[in-house]
Amino acid sequence: MAYLRIEYFSNALHRTANFEMMIPEEPPAGIPWEKNESQSRPMKTLFLLHGYTGKAGNWVPPGVAEKYNFAIVMPTAENSFYLDGEATGRKYQTLVGEELVDYVRKTFSLAKGPEDTCIAGLSMGGFGALHTGLAYPDRFGKIAALSSALIVHELKDIKPGGGNAVANYEYYRECFGDLSTAAERDVNPEVLARRLKADGKKIPGIYMACGTEDFLIENNRAMHRFLESEAIPHEYHESKGVHDMHFWSEYIVKAAEWMFG
Amino acid sequence: MAYLRIEYFSNALHRTANFEMMIPEEPPAGIPWEKNESQSRPMKTLFLLHGYTGKAGNWVPPGVAEKYNFAIVMPTAENSFYLDGEATGRKYQTLVGEELVDYVRKTFSLAKGPEDTCIAGLSMGGFGALHTGLAYPDRFGKIAALSSALIVHELKDIKPGGGNAVANYEYYRECFGDLSTAAERDVNPEVLARRLKADGKKIPGIYMACGTEDFLIENNRAMHRFLESEAIPHEYHESKGVHDMHFWSEYIVKAAEWMFG
Amino acid sequence: MAYLRIEYFSNALHRTANFEMMIPEEPPAGIPWEKNESQSRPMKTLFLLHGYTGKAGNWVPPGVAEKYNFAIVMPTAENSFYLDGEATGRKYQTLVGEELVDYVRKTFSLAKGPEDTCIAGLSMGGFGALHTGLAYPDRFGKIAALSSALIVHELKDIKPGGGNAVANYEYYRECFGDLSTAAERDVNPEVLARRLKADGKKIPGIYMACGTEDFLIENNRAMHRFLESEAIPHEYHESKGVHDMHFWSEYIVKAAEWMFG
Amino acid sequence: MAYLRIEYFSNALHRTANFEMMIPEEPPAGIPWEKNESQSRPMKTLFLLHGYTGKAGNWVPPGVAEKYNFAIVMPTAENSFYLDGEATGRKYQTLVGEELVDYVRKTFSLAKGPEDTCIAGLSMGGFGALHTGLAYPDRFGKIAALSSALIVHELKDIKPGGGNAVANYEYYRECFGDLSTAAERDVNPEVLARRLKADGKKIPGIYMACGTEDFLIENNRAMHRFLESEAIPHEYHESKGVHDMHFWSEYIVKAAEWMFG
Repeated sequence: MAYLRIEYFSNALHRTANFEMMIPEEPPAGIPWEKNESQSRPMKTLFLLHGYTGKAGNWVPPGVAEKYNFAIVMPTAENSFYLDGEATGRKYQTLVGEELVDYVRKTFSLAKGPEDTCIAGLSMGGFGALHTGLAYPDRFGKIAALSSALIVHELKDIKPGGGNAVANYEYYRECFGDLSTAAERDVNPEVLARRLKADGKKIPGIYMACGTEDFLIENNRAMHRFLESEAIPHEYHESKGVHDMHFWSEYIVKAAEWMFG
Repeated sequence: MAYLRIEYFSNALHRTANFEMMIPEEPPAGIPWEKNESQSRPMKTLFLLHGYTGKAGNWVPPGVAEKYNFAIVMPTAENSFYLDGEATGRKYQTLVGEELVDYVRKTFSLAKGPEDTCIAGLSMGGFGALHTGLAYPDRFGKIAALSSALIVHELKDIKPGGGNAVANYEYYRECFGDLSTAAERDVNPEVLARRLKADGKKIPGIYMACGTEDFLIENNRAMHRFLESEAIPHEYHESKGVHDMHFWSEYIVKAAEWMFG
Repeated sequence: MAYLRIEYFSNALHRTANFEMMIPEEPPAGIPWEKNESQSRPMKTLFLLHGYTGKAGNWVPPGVAEKYNFAIVMPTAENSFYLDGEATGRKYQTLVGEELVDYVRKTFSLAKGPEDTCIAGLSMGGFGALHTGLAYPDRFGKIAALSSALIVHELKDIKPGGGNAVANYEYYRECFGDLSTAAERDVNPEVLARRLKADGKKIPGIYMACGTEDFLIENNRAMHRFLESEAIPHEYHESKGVHDMHFWSEYIVKAAEWMFG
Repeated sequence: MAYLRIEYFSNALHRTANFEMMIPEEPPAGIPWEKNESQSRPMKTLFLLHGYTGKAGNWVPPGVAEKYNFAIVMPTAENSFYLDGEATGRKYQTLVGEELVDYVRKTFSLAKGPEDTCIAGLSMGGFGALHTGLAYPDRFGKIAALSSALIVHELKDIKPGGGNAVANYEYYRECFGDLSTAAERDVNPEVLARRLKADGKKIPGIYMACGTEDFLIENNRAMHRFLESEAIPHEYHESKGVHDMHFWSEYIVKAAEWMFG
């Protein structure tokens, strides 16, 4: 498994940004305890989105990339919710959904169609996977969203001077714009999904999972109900678990099988 | 010269952040074309601040750290102007002036007094060096500010819907807070300097330089006049040059001599 | 958990070398789903040695460093068996057991006594942990050796023009010197252990483990018998398992508890 | 300029190896002090070889890669003289001339013909550029060799128990094989050049430069005379200078112009 740490100039962020990649490779020849499977190029690609407080590379799915022969592109998007803010250099949606997709496709030997490109994430990155995937259905064929921070309906209750247990009003304002209208705008994945449906466009495949003890379980159930009510095909899974790596390590393997199996 | 790339959890940014360091070391023994100078610990420290669009490590002064035996700590502070914004996780002043100083002092064998700790930067980082140094005079003994982006007096003219050639209103608002009052608040290094003087506190040594063809020359001259009018000791240098590495490579050597010589 | 990637000049290798470190840190404040434990400096240190084909950082024990408050130093020693070869720049024993110990102790805020410094490894690194620990009992208080490549008794059968399933005669010759006498020389950990005993010196604590299906099981059993026959105190564990990460992930946790618990 | 740090499994070294790359990129849009030049893919490639004691990335030519639109691939080859030794995992010639060329061509969007692929280096890397380029004339169209360590004729005087100011007999033996015959074998670039000429094969373009005060000047003059005596076309340059970065920084720019201009 080759591992790449990459610095490049991002026009979306107006500065040098970084991302990391894993690329399956021919396994060692002549090492008795390593088994040999062959890999081919161009390969499929998974964009893998970290959660709040995270960065590229702090959550690497175990063993699946070699098994299904896909590269993993891991952006670092700070605590941005993968959204375009209003300020110059805050275009995190553009970063992941446009700039980085274009950059890796032109720089690496990767398969280029949406059928070969998936997006997944956990927590804030689960939100990002759903939102970015639905914003760019021509680029991403499938979305896997784990324990997703689908908090957009709660934002209207966060007022100047206030906040919630994680962050303050100003933070959410910089990520989502006007909080009182966020749920009606494109920062809400539901708005994007409804529009794709109304426009008769293809909606990426959707896989969701959340632990039953996760503090975000009701938010995920609400999204599940929304997708059902809109008759948008998706898989939804729950099992015992909290908001932690045990749950994500189990479900990213299942999601990888669903995306690339 | 040892080079370190470090990821750590930043409470100021509410996420994993990174910085880089250079640490002088015993030069190679037994390599005929390398000369041998001895280094000692604990060593002095320079906090070196990048400019707008930059990151840790994209501007490394040539040869001075070994010569004067100081470590270089290079934060990555995005396009933040090294200021504390209002939003959760935007505390870049705290990051550099408090958190990172404390972190490297407790983690590495570094000298810990202000007489052994300096701060320098170029462009946005020149502003950051002046501002952070004046905000924490008990931590930084000397400040070197090259081609500094001392733009705080221009901010009141940037209105909602507007901006300047570099960035829009929202960007400056997130960095500096209310733009109409920025020049009167602590985000203006002059306010900090005046307060230190009024309180009878020690003001760090100040070294400034700017190229005569730099688009920021008048801003630097204005700061020079301010310091003169306040009778705050400082060195101020101009010579032919623009806003580029040629100028900075020359003056960081002079500034290092001034700081650590 | 801070993560450091470090390049420095190694006199033992006669070139720029690299190693990686993990340093426990204060966990995030104000992140509801992260629990908060406090850490202190100076901290204990584990030198963690990779196996054949590996490098620093490709085997990071899960969760134990924070739990017991120790830093992890991960050298990259190529396929050297952590031994000093005869050629200039092949001093891998010196690299790990002297140079790097001294370097991290003078550069970082680490506890400095053998009671606070342990060495562990897997496969070739298990051999390295035993060998380096026994070569420097004044530096390392405890040794944990997993699935160790204790192959020194087999080397006499490798002849010029030959080799084994892993590598050829020349490779082993460069690592171990004269293969016909290797088992009688200091490259054999048994020779070091016997000498420490004969000299009445303190022998580091020893923890060994190997999977019952591992191709190295008989080599590990032989070392266990040797230690018993010499009445050298040690722990020895076997359980079902092969030469893979499942075994090592389980036993490094047990070994960490034994070393630092 | 994108910068990539890459770990991958090397069959030539029988372990995880690393290399670094620089890839020109579209310069920033909307940054007033940055000028905008456009870049295209696939791009030409320069393999850039470090000297003794060095590693990938410790010598990066200033500004030329963007100017001529070529990627730079920087292997780390330790102190190997870029030669295949006899021991398993010492195939440094194969690493650079075969494995890495193939790896980057299949992984990145790079031009693939010898007319688009050059190799350059300094000191030990200058030797490596000449040797590797002449060993693989179907892969490298041009060779630039600065201050090259063309020491192969001196090796026969290094005897067991001896060495020279840099390293001992065993070191040179591991790099070059039998030292008494090295000058007559393929480890001597002259042998490779003569064979290409005898076989009527295309010989890569050759550019050499050395400082007149360099301790390697006579070795470089001897190679120049050899190429003249064989009527092998090449450029040869001398100017005042020693074995240091001042000389290399000047001549790599000239060499880049010669290779890609």
